[in-house]
Amino acid sequence: MHFNMNEAIEVLERTPQTLEYFLSDLSEGWLHCHEGEGTWNAFEVIEHLIEAEKNNWLPRLEFIIQEGESKPFPPFDRFSHLKESSERSMEQKLLEFKMLRTQNITKLKALIKPELHFELTGFHPAFGEVKIRELLSTWVVHDLTHIAQIVRVMAKRYKEDVGPWEEYLGILKNNDGAEKSIIGKKQ
Amino acid sequence: MHFNMNEAIEVLERTPQTLEYFLSDLSEGWLHCHEGEGTWNAFEVIEHLIEAEKNNWLPRLEFIIQEGESKPFPPFDRFSHLKESSERSMEQKLLEFKMLRTQNITKLKALIKPELHFELTGFHPAFGEVKIRELLSTWVVHDLTHIAQIVRVMAKRYKEDVGPWEEYLGILKNNDGAEKSIIGKKQ
Repeated sequence: MHFNMNEAIEVLERTPQTLEYFLSDLSEGWLHCHEGEGTWNAFEVIEHLIEAEKNNWLPRLEFIIQEGESKPFPPFDRFSHLKESSERSMEQKLLEFKMLRTQNITKLKALIKPELHFELTGFHPAFGEVKIRELLSTWVVHDLTHIAQIVRVMAKRYKEDVGPWEEYLGILKNNDGAEKSIIGKKQ
Repeated sequence: MHFNMNEAIEVLERTPQTLEYFLSDLSEGWLHCHEGEGTWNAFEVIEHLIEAEKNNWLPRLEFIIQEGESKPFPPFDRFSHLKESSERSMEQKLLEFKMLRTQNITKLKALIKPELHFELTGFHPAFGEVKIRELLSTWVVHDLTHIAQIVRVMAKRYKEDVGPWEEYLGILKNNDGAEKSIIGKKQ
């Protein structure tokens, strides 16, 4: 096991500001590009991260602590953010993500004591038994997945433009972690 | 064609500081993890980016402008940074990368006029004819590739830790853009 509370928090703390630095004031061309129909642009990824801060990580942690395995926690709709159109700018979305994340890290630190809570189990609607430490590890990997997704989507915008170098640029070939491949699933 | 000089520079400008924010003061566990023998950790990726700032992008641009297709430009050894062990901290490496990138963007702006230079061709040792606009597009995608690589390598550190959620996290399966897959090739 590599998971460690402090190291996990290091990543969770960095994600919003890393994305803020990378995406703020970028041209619309970069922010609106995607990998084809049914795939997400950078706006949609940030909206999904906001949605997960509100309705996934902390609510599930609290649910496990309160309910244990007595009942499955409500599924998180990974596509709910797509149902609401939002006119806010990227900068406003990034600010919301950062504020929610900061609040959630504060709550996380207050709520979870490794020695008491890491092995507590809840009941995932699809997987059955899951541990709190697995949920926390997933939170970290979920951040990393979506940073990689944003970067990959942007890279693919230049797929034709790189000419013969395409051969050396694996990012233009794969669909690593693409939402497309698991569309319709609940996380 | 999506390539556009100003938009390309937007990404080139952001990469060093994005990585600086993401990687500074991270625990050694995150900075030293890799995807197995022959693959790179975050230190090695940053060293490779530094090496490319010194010996790849600008030197090749200047070579094309001076020599055109008259002779192939010298191959860039993608693994040369691995031959020199360096004891510098991540923060020192990131600072060097940022300084070199800033200088190179200044040189790029002075050197390249889109209407004059984009279609100029050079002779790549493996590919033959390549255009300046393809080299510049590749510079951008190369940045994005290596941001994605760092993030993917970190994600895989928690491959076992996420438990059953592994199924939903595509980043843990693929080897998007991994250096491993093209080891030994010159870029």
